[in-house]
Amino acid sequence: MGIPDDSVGVVETKSFTFAAPPHEMPLESGERLGPITLAYETYGKLDGGRSNAILLLHALSGDAHAAGFHEGEKNPGWWDSIVGPGKAFDTDKYFVISSNVIGGCRGSTGPSSPNPKTGSPYGSDFPLVSIKDMVDAQRHLLSHLGIERLFSVAGGSMGGMQVLQWMVSYPEKIRSAIPISTALKHTPQQIAFNEVGRQAIMADPNWRGGNYYGDSPPSRGLAVARMVGHITYMSEASMGEKFGRRLKESKRPVKFSPDFEVEGYLENRGESFVKRFDANSYLYISKAMDYFDAVGARTPSEIFKGLRAKVLVIAFKSDWLYPAHQSQEIVKACKWAGVDAAYCEVHSTYGHDAFLLETGEETRLIKHFLTSTFSRRDDGHEKATSNEIRLPGNR
Amino acid sequence: MGIPDDSVGVVETKSFTFAAPPHEMPLESGERLGPITLAYETYGKLDGGRSNAILLLHALSGDAHAAGFHEGEKNPGWWDSIVGPGKAFDTDKYFVISSNVIGGCRGSTGPSSPNPKTGSPYGSDFPLVSIKDMVDAQRHLLSHLGIERLFSVAGGSMGGMQVLQWMVSYPEKIRSAIPISTALKHTPQQIAFNEVGRQAIMADPNWRGGNYYGDSPPSRGLAVARMVGHITYMSEASMGEKFGRRLKESKRPVKFSPDFEVEGYLENRGESFVKRFDANSYLYISKAMDYFDAVGARTPSEIFKGLRAKVLVIAFKSDWLYPAHQSQEIVKACKWAGVDAAYCEVHSTYGHDAFLLETGEETRLIKHFLTSTFSRRDDGHEKATSNEIRLPGNR
Repeated sequence: MGIPDDSVGVVETKSFTFAAPPHEMPLESGERLGPITLAYETYGKLDGGRSNAILLLHALSGDAHAAGFHEGEKNPGWWDSIVGPGKAFDTDKYFVISSNVIGGCRGSTGPSSPNPKTGSPYGSDFPLVSIKDMVDAQRHLLSHLGIERLFSVAGGSMGGMQVLQWMVSYPEKIRSAIPISTALKHTPQQIAFNEVGRQAIMADPNWRGGNYYGDSPPSRGLAVARMVGHITYMSEASMGEKFGRRLKESKRPVKFSPDFEVEGYLENRGESFVKRFDANSYLYISKAMDYFDAVGARTPSEIFKGLRAKVLVIAFKSDWLYPAHQSQEIVKACKWAGVDAAYCEVHSTYGHDAFLLETGEETRLIKHFLTSTFSRRDDGHEKATSNEIRLPGNR
Repeated sequence: MGIPDDSVGVVETKSFTFAAPPHEMPLESGERLGPITLAYETYGKLDGGRSNAILLLHALSGDAHAAGFHEGEKNPGWWDSIVGPGKAFDTDKYFVISSNVIGGCRGSTGPSSPNPKTGSPYGSDFPLVSIKDMVDAQRHLLSHLGIERLFSVAGGSMGGMQVLQWMVSYPEKIRSAIPISTALKHTPQQIAFNEVGRQAIMADPNWRGGNYYGDSPPSRGLAVARMVGHITYMSEASMGEKFGRRLKESKRPVKFSPDFEVEGYLENRGESFVKRFDANSYLYISKAMDYFDAVGARTPSEIFKGLRAKVLVIAFKSDWLYPAHQSQEIVKACKWAGVDAAYCEVHSTYGHDAFLLETGEETRLIKHFLTSTFSRRDDGHEKATSNEIRLPGNR
């Protein structure tokens, strides 16, 4: 297989471990976690001024492998279409870091990791982690990489929540931010879809209260959770285009077997998901999304106060899981805080998946946004456009 | 408890049995079913001309108990708000029949009924039944009640599919029809939501291939199926109004327990559903909905050809499970066939549940439609508006 010219090529997932006891990282819940390992990948080169770093953040089921190919694998990373030489996140120009999240199962510390107190996997003893905790861990990773300030931070869906959390937690550490197909907080409908997935997992007798490691995992429950997810990631239109009411060729209609193509698709996606994802991680991460609330007890006008980063908010028209009005609320909160925010609503029939698939328009938007922001990244410009007014003779 | 004046009062579910072997009813699948029992209720009185009968048809999880109160019960039937004296389906004027469906578990023959060949419940040996089979069975019930022609047939969701099937199978036997919040056929998205419910049931080890009677039923799987259903019956807006992001008062946030109100609601609905519904019936009936295709191999302009009934099609704006464009397709098919069809899209935030809840506007529409149709039900008028032209001297 030839590797395309605009690919970052063969890459490896690296890992970084910190917070070894007794220096555990404090969590939002009040508990402490350590040691913590974060899986991450990097593409491109950090420039001499360490000013060209972009952090990419993934969605619920994603991982650190955003671009390029792992040795011997046919499929590239999940955002390969917009990360690479000349692409939206241009690796000829930027140093791109893709970080996995804590709570996961793709190389970072999560419920399937060994609990240092027992030597056995945490299972349900793993503490609840929040979007803020995920971002705090990424902050440690950036220190490790010697990056004091990010040129940009970007991600879709739960990745977008992490972007918003970066804007709230570390406003001084980012020059720009790109939250995509995301929300300041989940609506009850979004919580409800996640809850159905969790209930499907916990209804599987193999779940055993979360302590199933070394035994059969709750694969059927996790597959059902994934099926629900996939319905919400697509749109009525994209499902209609992709499947219609066609029946599967290879199967006679047997009672309750998946005989429509759409049923076969969901079955396949469920089956392949359970091979690469841990059910407990699904519980922990989906719960982190549901608890996420960038507004909290404040008013929406306060949350981005003091943020000097430029912000590009992107939503997709057919996305009914994270509908455009939720992105508009992010823009409003930015405007109230005087933040320089642009809003783009992209036409697409792909539904929530559009942030991964509608890459032509997404590339144009992101490329232009990054290029125009990058050309003004010297401090002088920032002072000129900030709210600080330099009075004559006032040094 | 006092019974309100506009209630049909205390009612009882009746039943009718037919198709005793060797006279089983042929099914669309080619198999035969018998004996068949149908549960039904009636409200109001049949007039002397037997011309005032209205057949009401229920949705997936409904039953024959559409109006009034069962002895000792606090909650009335599922469409009580629009069936009763002076209501939309005015029982002072019309003889209203509400029929359960075959395949169900609420008094009619279904997978939990005894298989006459073995004496034990059918389980998975119950044949696949279709919407057409349900309607054919209702046709037998009407003969039993001595009704040759219905004044109207009405229902929402799967009830609306049965209405459409009446329009296709027995056009000469209905004077009017009211399909509500329904579709000529399921989209892949609608199939996909049903399939997730089925997979949740079949993933429950208690399902045992459908032969669980006399043992623990697959309650957890059925509860998950019901939870998915409830999300699709509501709208983003109605969930937002009803629950917001409020946490349950009575529960401390325990890891993965339902702590948001919306989660508690879904849990309760799941738990109460498994007490009154059979998991196999959920499989059979949801599959009948997915296979339903009023168009089939014909063109949409052919399906209602020859239908002389007046039709009122109702859709609700926030219904994203059966979106308005599907109702508009029904109207188009009527118009193509020269059928007198009216279309009303009602504003509501209730989502698909609107056909059960948005009863003010629904009442005005149905009442006016029935009253104006009823006043012209004499045969003379029908001849005058039909395509038959009587030539002078031609008797």
